[in-house]
Amino acid sequence: MAYDAIETPFDKVDKILGGCATYIALAASQLDVEVSVISIIGDDFEEAHLEMLRKRNIDLSGVETIAGGKTFFWSGRYHNDLNTRTTLQTDLNVLMQFDPKVPTAWTKSEIVLLGNLNPLNQAAVLDQMTSRPKLVIMDTMNYWMDSFRSELDAVIPRVDVLCINDEEARQLTAQNSLVKAAKMIQQMGPKYVIIKKGEHGALLFHKEEVFCAPALPLEEIFDPTGAGDSFVGGFAAYLAQTGTISFEAMKSAIVYASAMASFTVEKFGPQNLETLTEEKIQQRLRAFDQLTKFEIDLA
Amino acid sequence: MAYDAIETPFDKVDKILGGCATYIALAASQLDVEVSVISIIGDDFEEAHLEMLRKRNIDLSGVETIAGGKTFFWSGRYHNDLNTRTTLQTDLNVLMQFDPKVPTAWTKSEIVLLGNLNPLNQAAVLDQMTSRPKLVIMDTMNYWMDSFRSELDAVIPRVDVLCINDEEARQLTAQNSLVKAAKMIQQMGPKYVIIKKGEHGALLFHKEEVFCAPALPLEEIFDPTGAGDSFVGGFAAYLAQTGTISFEAMKSAIVYASAMASFTVEKFGPQNLETLTEEKIQQRLRAFDQLTKFEIDLA
Repeated sequence: MAYDAIETPFDKVDKILGGCATYIALAASQLDVEVSVISIIGDDFEEAHLEMLRKRNIDLSGVETIAGGKTFFWSGRYHNDLNTRTTLQTDLNVLMQFDPKVPTAWTKSEIVLLGNLNPLNQAAVLDQMTSRPKLVIMDTMNYWMDSFRSELDAVIPRVDVLCINDEEARQLTAQNSLVKAAKMIQQMGPKYVIIKKGEHGALLFHKEEVFCAPALPLEEIFDPTGAGDSFVGGFAAYLAQTGTISFEAMKSAIVYASAMASFTVEKFGPQNLETLTEEKIQQRLRAFDQLTKFEIDLA
Repeated sequence: MAYDAIETPFDKVDKILGGCATYIALAASQLDVEVSVISIIGDDFEEAHLEMLRKRNIDLSGVETIAGGKTFFWSGRYHNDLNTRTTLQTDLNVLMQFDPKVPTAWTKSEIVLLGNLNPLNQAAVLDQMTSRPKLVIMDTMNYWMDSFRSELDAVIPRVDVLCINDEEARQLTAQNSLVKAAKMIQQMGPKYVIIKKGEHGALLFHKEEVFCAPALPLEEIFDPTGAGDSFVGGFAAYLAQTGTISFEAMKSAIVYASAMASFTVEKFGPQNLETLTEEKIQQRLRAFDQLTKFEIDLA
């Protein structure tokens, strides 16, 4: 959980709620599932933000507050095409002392989603689970591949679904072909590989099967921050709600995930996720349906 | 119609059949439609190549042979990622004197596909049509935008479907957003806009409707030459066979088009298109079906 300062070609904001856990939880809370967050914040974290999350039935009993500490802060500027960004400032603050503790009530959780963070933190969460979750989903990014590769390599085999973007998949495997990269990642352990391609959608790989979901073509992308987190949060929640772990269920989950990402990029920070209605979500799912459905004569 | 010399990271070939008309006609000839080509060649053009095309029921009576002339020659090298290429040599040869003549029997054709060529040649074909075709489809590229912009701007309003790639759509409209670019192109005249995104698939725009077809994720792309031409050739032929011009029919046509492109890139030049079977095509269409179909509860 974090505070961000964000500049886009359209606007800027000096302090807005952020952090992967926030986006994941907000996206997941759109469905009728138990959402429980493990994170760390400083006592500067605003009560109104905690309240907003609690009102959405997000269980924050795994969120540690450090007295006198400051919440993680990230500041970045998006360039004109919104596909690239420059990090202006990163203040780890309380994150430097993060030692995630899984509340006893959660140690048998069926689905564990490891947000994009230090692989040592991700491993520490898995270590505390007293029964093997039905599904472990993990997000990560190039930073951990560059600087924590061995720690990352130790967590990846413990994961069922690895969710990364195309450039990260190429970096992780040294393969240019995403099909080859996904095969190699499956050899590392994860049985399912999701490769996010931003405005070009996402691919899901499992053995010889592939599924491709488009991103919704949007006239304007306002702020891409948190799109990947909302995506993976929506993905996990959809699977939790259906209760089925299968390639077929994951296809639908990825479409739901893409819908969540499409909402996120339409406004600054997580604002759009805070005010979504069931009707808006259904409308968007229909848009995805129309975007992709076709009939062709198959002999 | 042309001869190409192609270098890829995997292999090279000094002389292979090429040219947009060749790829278009070969892709179109997979379906049971009348395919008629207007082009120009030198007398160096091999009889075996003409014979191969004729055997596929491609009508070459619009192909002019220049005695003592040399066929258009292009030579290029693809870089490691296969997304970029360097043109090594372009010998226009007989193309310099190309003045397309539409055989009288074809002047009432229902579907006219203007391959990627000088917009003056494209206009000359339209000028010779004695009745307005049901559908005019046009492909073009950045070269004509750079050097023949006013000629290009004169043809675009006469076209129903403009088929270009993402970078070209951005260049043509000075819009970064493809949604905005497609809207602006529709304002120029074409009621339908297809934006090709290579390995990321293709988008079809018409009024407020959008359709997105993925590209088939391939382990290895052997030679991208002609993929866009095969795409548009398959698109036109599919519409000709169904006999319906509508957004729904175009969705299916784009999937068929993507299948044709996916075959083309698997081998050097047009080789794969020369030996396709109905069974292989059906198999690939099923792969596209599986790649994209999902079920999600829609209220």
